[in-house]
Amino acid sequence: MNIAKVIGRVWATQKLPDLEGLKFLVLQPMEGTGEAPVGDFIVAADSQQAGPGDVVFYVTSKEASFPFERKYTALDAAIVGHVDRIDT
Amino acid sequence: MNIAKVIGRVWATQKLPDLEGLKFLVLQPMEGTGEAPVGDFIVAADSQQAGPGDVVFYVTSKEASFPFERKYTALDAAIVGHVDRIDT
Amino acid sequence: MNIAKVIGRVWATQKLPDLEGLKFLVLQPMEGTGEAPVGDFIVAADSQQAGPGDVVFYVTSKEASFPFERKYTALDAAIVGHVDRIDT
Amino acid sequence: MNIAKVIGRVWATQKLPDLEGLKFLVLQPMEGTGEAPVGDFIVAADSQQAGPGDVVFYVTSKEASFPFERKYTALDAAIVGHVDRIDT
Amino acid sequence: MNIAKVIGRVWATQKLPDLEGLKFLVLQPMEGTGEAPVGDFIVAADSQQAGPGDVVFYVTSKEASFPFERKYTALDAAIVGHVDRIDT
Repeated sequence: MNIAKVIGRVWATQKLPDLEGLKFLVLQPMEGTGEAPVGDFIVAADSQQAGPGDVVFYVTSKEASFPFERKYTALDAAIVGHVDRIDT
Repeated sequence: MNIAKVIGRVWATQKLPDLEGLKFLVLQPMEGTGEAPVGDFIVAADSQQAGPGDVVFYVTSKEASFPFERKYTALDAAIVGHVDRIDT
Repeated sequence: MNIAKVIGRVWATQKLPDLEGLKFLVLQPMEGTGEAPVGDFIVAADSQQAGPGDVVFYVTSKEASFPFERKYTALDAAIVGHVDRIDT
Repeated sequence: MNIAKVIGRVWATQKLPDLEGLKFLVLQPMEGTGEAPVGDFIVAADSQQAGPGDVVFYVTSKEASFPFERKYTALDAAIVGHVDRIDT
Repeated sequence: MNIAKVIGRVWATQKLPDLEGLKFLVLQPMEGTGEAPVGDFIVAADSQQAGPGDVVFYVTSKEASFPFERKYTALDAAIVGHVDRIDT
């Protein structure tokens, strides 16, 4: 998993039927303390009612479809939790 | 998922039989707002009637075969939607 | 697998039910001798009672759910062993 | 998928029995037009009678075993087609 | 697959039971001719009686568990062959 800050939302009317009803957020990955940005943006499906400014953790690759109970959904990134605090 | 702009098309006569009939597009990945290029080109199969100049989002790895209902197709990147707008 | 040093812990109250009860640690990947940091932090689930300062090795991607006997858990990184020594 | 030029061949007598009979080629990944090199070499199994100088496209990860009808073969890169032309 | 030189060994007493009996080697990935190092070290399980100084090729991700006939083993890198020669 990685830590990221939610920085935006993607609107997409024309898409795979499997993806209907999912919310897609733009994430800025963050380094270990959740305070500094690192690397490129990614787009993730949201399973945790996340919104702009939230610090979340997310999974990538095939694991990303599991939160949505659609085993074969064409997803490769999903938010799976909100980060309360990071102790380092 | 990541966001990309369609910038070209790949023509390939000799290929795996599993890949017959698929359209392969060259994508330039874009950063979060969909306006600036980031990273290297990739080649993706198209499930969304995309064409040059379109801003799309795509999945990578095994998920890429799901839009085409061919469970074992040797694909690792596919366009799954058109991007209407990105709010950041 | 890669080698990393445990440098922190992530606390997350709101998360996928599948992830309840797992401990999430912040890892700093290390180069081959386990002494110098390399690359970005990642967050991994712990199957080995690891704590801050421990040098561990971890797996990524789908393999990360196997230690927890939850085949479809949305995990993509897990600590699978403690490193005693590296001979180079 | 990515585009690459075939630049060499790997000879390996001692290997997993599952890999017997496969041809392994060294690929130099290329950017979108197939003309300029980008990134590091990789080694891929060949399903398309490719040879030095050919411009091909290849898949990575688990998809790489599909062309060879050996579902569990320990392969993570395979050539799946020859590139005739790229329009950009 | 990628090419690497074996440069060390990892000793780990406390680890997942699934990993008992496996030998873990530190690999330095090499570029196409097998002569110059490229990128970061990784740790791989050995299925080919490899040792320090050997030039090998290895697979990553889920394919890494196949040589060991343990379908769900938490492995993500494995040596699958010795490189005799690379023609470029």
